[in-house]
Order: sequence, then structure tokens, then C-alpha cells
Amino acid sequence: MKALHFLSPRGFRAGGVYSGIKSRRVNDVGVLACDAPTPAVAAFTTNKVFAAPIAVGRKHIAGGKLCGLVINSGNANACTGQQGLNDAQEMCRIAGAALRCPPARVLPGSTGIIGHTLPMEKLRRGIVEAAMNLGTTSEHSTAFNDAILTTDTRRKFAAAQLKLGGKVVTITGICKGAGMIGPRLALPQATMLAYLLTDASISSAQLRRVFMPAVNKSFNAVTIDDHMSTNDTAVLLASGASGVKVGSSSEVRRFSDALTEVCQSLAEQIAADGEGATKTVRIDVIRGKTDRAAETIARAIANSPLVKCAMHGNDPNWGRIVSAAGMCGVPFDPDRATLSLQGVEVFRKGRPAAFDPETVSELLGAKQVIVRLDCGSGKSSHTLWTCDMSEEYVSINADYHT
Amino acid sequence: MKALHFLSPRGFRAGGVYSGIKSRRVNDVGVLACDAPTPAVAAFTTNKVFAAPIAVGRKHIAGGKLCGLVINSGNANACTGQQGLNDAQEMCRIAGAALRCPPARVLPGSTGIIGHTLPMEKLRRGIVEAAMNLGTTSEHSTAFNDAILTTDTRRKFAAAQLKLGGKVVTITGICKGAGMIGPRLALPQATMLAYLLTDASISSAQLRRVFMPAVNKSFNAVTIDDHMSTNDTAVLLASGASGVKVGSSSEVRRFSDALTEVCQSLAEQIAADGEGATKTVRIDVIRGKTDRAAETIARAIANSPLVKCAMHGNDPNWGRIVSAAGMCGVPFDPDRATLSLQGVEVFRKGRPAAFDPETVSELLGAKQVIVRLDCGSGKSSHTLWTCDMSEEYVSINADYHT
Repeated sequence: MKALHFLSPRGFRAGGVYSGIKSRRVNDVGVLACDAPTPAVAAFTTNKVFAAPIAVGRKHIAGGKLCGLVINSGNANACTGQQGLNDAQEMCRIAGAALRCPPARVLPGSTGIIGHTLPMEKLRRGIVEAAMNLGTTSEHSTAFNDAILTTDTRRKFAAAQLKLGGKVVTITGICKGAGMIGPRLALPQATMLAYLLTDASISSAQLRRVFMPAVNKSFNAVTIDDHMSTNDTAVLLASGASGVKVGSSSEVRRFSDALTEVCQSLAEQIAADGEGATKTVRIDVIRGKTDRAAETIARAIANSPLVKCAMHGNDPNWGRIVSAAGMCGVPFDPDRATLSLQGVEVFRKGRPAAFDPETVSELLGAKQVIVRLDCGSGKSSHTLWTCDMSEEYVSINADYHT
Repeated sequence: MKALHFLSPRGFRAGGVYSGIKSRRVNDVGVLACDAPTPAVAAFTTNKVFAAPIAVGRKHIAGGKLCGLVINSGNANACTGQQGLNDAQEMCRIAGAALRCPPARVLPGSTGIIGHTLPMEKLRRGIVEAAMNLGTTSEHSTAFNDAILTTDTRRKFAAAQLKLGGKVVTITGICKGAGMIGPRLALPQATMLAYLLTDASISSAQLRRVFMPAVNKSFNAVTIDDHMSTNDTAVLLASGASGVKVGSSSEVRRFSDALTEVCQSLAEQIAADGEGATKTVRIDVIRGKTDRAAETIARAIANSPLVKCAMHGNDPNWGRIVSAAGMCGVPFDPDRATLSLQGVEVFRKGRPAAFDPETVSELLGAKQVIVRLDCGSGKSSHTLWTCDMSEEYVSINADYHT
């Protein structure tokens, strides 16, 4: 099997260039073109303060088909009023003209600083230049990928292949996000941006059905700082170029599983690249009384700065975890609960369990930590990915100046 | 006017000693005695994981009168099962015997590490010794005060006096709390501990009516890390020793105002002594659509690590504040909202306001920062006190080892 990259699914070409929006000389404009109008689904931030490209994107995705994507980093085009809306539309017009497709079939995306209008001259030149240099190689994948990054320290890529009716279908995805990550996408959220491609043949209606469950189990289940961005967006495009139709319910289920796997890998990569992160922490809450209880408890633990700092210090401070579960206003009975860290039970039914703090502390030094809270009171479970909180998290966010 | 101290209101004697619970040689056991059974009200943590002294305290306060307080620091007696309950009751028995009053009229309190049973022999000696050395001087106030501190870097004290019917009534308060501070007390919460005394004559029923509004506008309006503790407690004792009856509705209102002022001063002192804090930040949300919207928005801003880090860096990063307001699921329309930092408008009706970042950054360097968000959409307001987040916050909480 050849190494997969973002543009491995057929039916898409992409490119990226540096247009001068970012002060650092790294790509800041990306364009992706579909070979034909392509079934697509997108989920956007549910923040009531949403950026201009979100407003425009919601309209453009309504038709269920897209011809292309145009994105920039370095400027979020958020809190920019009517001028911002005009600019987001203009991005689509420029890209549409270059790709020879209606502007309403182009989905715009922006990420970066809030409250500044886009430098449209630079952006126009960047879009045109990127559109003139589209391709399908791994270099093109990288050029497009780089154009969506901001404070990320690395690229994030995931892929899956499955055989349907004897033929191979490919799903790939890239995403960005390191801070202001607490997506609660409703068929959209961070500035998490996630772009997913597949060459499967699947209708827009079917895409919508499989996309949100995958998003909920992945992007909506990662939190760095619980701060939902104004620009969060996840998009899935299905070119159909493999000629493989995803039709029967078992095919849909297998496609859905593969899609979820790709999205979860990307979500974990976001957690691992969280600002200042030295490790990922997966919070598994099981046997919660209700779905809402399990999710609320998982979020309270994942977002507690006390828990995140303890994780950074390899401190098996289970009191912080159990008290976080108790404070969030949903059913939780410590006398029924069991907590384990890296598989070692540290708390059982209202009491400390006997464990060796030194050993557990060593286990917490791993790159991937698993916190498992068994509520012992129901059938609901919820998993979240987060990271530890380091001194560097503070310095990054105290020194990132407006 | 003589300088006031915690025991200035007549009718109370207190003391504090070092019993060996803390590793550092500072007071860790305190006893307060009322000269007679005294009307009292207490509010406790609403965390579902609550400590043994909370369980016992809820029962003992039910009678509406107390004869004394017994408290220890260095050990929270939380997640300690039946043994913990026995120990909390035993604390009251020992104190009751020493003070010659029923154990059920003693309110216990503990703060410190979670998940360890109390060292009862040390504690017994400490309680007896403290009870043998009770007094009313400022030295006695300090000895008792020191016994409730943990990671606090300073004592917190506030007082108010008012004249009712020509006579002076005194209200004083002390409190502790530096981390795990996000109280939502319901006639109890942190390990915020707050002890309030007055020599006014006021019934238990009347005390209950004035106490919760004061607690809601003060202790429940301070957040360091949004982490509700297992042990948070606030208590108010009214000895009546001044001979001044708080009876008429105007007297109750004036007493209530003075009490609120004392509680708010203590709450601000908690924020100022937040772990790693270099400044306090007051969040004023005004003209919110509903009370719930105003409070939820204020909490989202106050608890955002991105906002707290920006405050630490003197960064007028209003995008983080406005997006926090938009993400919390309550009505908020950025096109109606105005945000000012230290009195300088930085965002107005969906758009950045023209301001000089250098000037505002300088203003944010103050010890007290005021963030004011006018939602422009209703009549509800909410104020919260918090602090900035520094690298030191992380190191304190990553290195505080279990």
C-alpha cells in the first residue's frame, strides 16, 4: 500500500501559498477544487459570536454540494461586521472565478486573530496563485495543509481505507487546532478546522446522517481549554470518484465506522498538539446515570485546571478528579464510583484504594494517560480527549499579544 | 475607633494551636466558643462529593443555634467513609466536653488534603489545648485565623460597624481559600472557609434570610479555578451581646448591607490571594437578557484560561472575552454588546472599537482590573471576582504532590 496523504481520494486537487497575511513566511492561503459538484456536509461553531466565513459557509453548504474550498490563516475574519461578510463572499467569488464554479458552491474558512478585516489584495493574489497551482500529490496535500495552521506545532493527518463490494474506498482528513479548542460543533466548531475527503459515492443526505455522530465522538470530544472558537468548522466532501456506492445499511455502518476512526485520530492529534501540552489525557466516564451526566462529568474533569496541572506533575491526585465529578450538578454518587489512573484503581466506593503513589506517578509520566471513572450507577458512557496544563500553556497565552 | 479584629464582636472567645497535623509548624486546630447558645446560619458546598464535617455540620446547624466551632487544617476529612463521619462527630464531642456544651451544638470544619483519615490523637490534644486557651484579644483572633489557612499566603479579614437605635453593632469575618475555589454554596461551599461573627441580636430565621443573599453576592461570586471543593463552608454567628436588636425591616436592610460588604471584601481578598495570582479581575456583566444569561456569561469569561492568561500578560485580547460570552449557550448578541477594559471601550456592537493597545495594556497592569460587558439586551447583571492565571499557578498545582 502506498503511503496515503490528504489528496489520496480521487476527485480533488489542492494547493497552498504564502500571500503575506501571516508575518511568518508560511503558507496562509489554501484552495481545494472538486473535479465536479460534490456531495458535502459541514458542521460549524455553535458560538453566538461566529465569524463571517461561518455565516457565508452555512448558506453555501445548504445546497448539499460544493465545488471547492478557500481558506486563509492568520486572520479569522471574526467581529468584522458587514465588511467581513463582504470579504468572505469576495473570497468565494475569487475562488469561484478561478475554479470556474458558482461562488455559492465554494465554502470559505478563516482562522487567526479576531477583530481585523482581511487584507483583501494579498488574499486575492494568494487565491489566484493557489488556484493556478492545484495538484494531487503529497506535496500539494502539504501545501494545502500548511495553509490552515496557526499555533499548531505539527501537521495532523489521518486516513482509513475499507473495501466495499470488492473495491477500495479511501477516507482522509487533516485538521488544525492547538488553542481555543472546546468545540461543540452542530453540523459545526474551535478554531478547529477539519477537512475530510473521500472518494466514496454517497448522497448528501446520507453524509449528513453519518457525519454528526462521527463529529460528536471526535472533534466535539476534544477540549484543550473549553473555549469554543468563532470559526470552528469541519467539512466532509465525497467525490464518488472510486465508483463505489455506499448504499446498504451495512455499507453505511462500515463507512461510518471508518470515518469515525479518522476523525478520532485527528481529535487525538489535536489534544497532543494542545498549547504547551506534554501528554494527552483521555477521560473515560462509564456507567453514568444518564448520557448528560456522563458527558457533564467528563467535561468537568477534562476542563479542571487543577486536574490538568496534576496530570502535568504526574500527580495521582484523585481527590481533584472525584470532586470535579461531584461539583457539576448531575447525578453522581461517590459511594458507587471507582476511579482508575492508567489502569490502577486509586478510589473505590467513597474511599481511597490502596495504591503506591510512586508507581502511579511513574505511569502518569507516559505520553498517553487514561483516566477512567466508573460511576456505577447507569449505562451511559462518554469519552473526551484533552491534554495536561503546563507553565508553557500560560506563557503562550499570556504572551500572544493582540 | 480601636482597630477591629475577628473577636471584636462580644460574646465569643477563640484560640488556635499547632497539633502536628500539618508538616509545617503553623496552627492547625482552632476552637471558637460562644458565651451562650447563639443563633447561627451556615452554608455548605453543593458538591455531591462532600466531606464528613459537612455531613455532620448540616445536621448540627439544623437547630439554628451553636455553642462553638471546631476546625482543623491540613486534612479535609473527605472521602474517608464511615471512619471520617465517626471522626467528625468525635471532634464535636471533644470540643463539646471542653466547652461544656452538647456536641450537636458544635459545628466542625476541616480543610486540607482529601482521602486521609484524621490523626485523632493529635487532633484530640490540639482541641483540648486550644479550648484551654480561649480569649478575646487580637492575638486570639490571629491564632484562630491561622488555624484555618492552607495554601493561603496571607490572612483575610473584614469588618463593618453600623449604628442601630443609637448603639453600635459590629460584624467581622475571616476566611481562607487560594485554590479549589469556585464555590456555589447553598446555605453552604470551597475549600473556602468563612467565619463571620456579629454581636447583633437577630433570630436564626432572620439570619437565614439575610445570609444567602450576602453569600451569593460574595463567596459564590468568586472563582479561582471553578473547582467547587468538598469542604466549603461559610458560617455566621450572632451573639446578641451588643444588646441591639435587628428588628424593623429598615434595620434588617442596613444589617444585610453591612454583612454583604464584609463578605464581599473577604471574597475579593480570596481572589487577590488566588494561587499564583498577580492581580484581581472583576467581571461586570450588565444588561444581560436574563439573570441566568448574565451569570453564565460572567462565569464563562471568569473561568476561561485564555482570558485569565491574557489578563496575566496585560493583553487587551477582547476576542477571547467576547467569544467566551458567545459560547456558553445563553442569549447573547454581539451586535448589541459593548466591552470595556479598565473603562476603555475595546469592542462595540459587533466590531472592534478604536483604542490604543499600548495604553490599555498599561492599564491592565494594575492590581485590580475591571472587565465590563454590556450585553445591551436586558436588565440583568452579574458580578464575579477572579484573578489572572500565571505560570506560578501551574507550578503550584503540578508540584503539590499527593
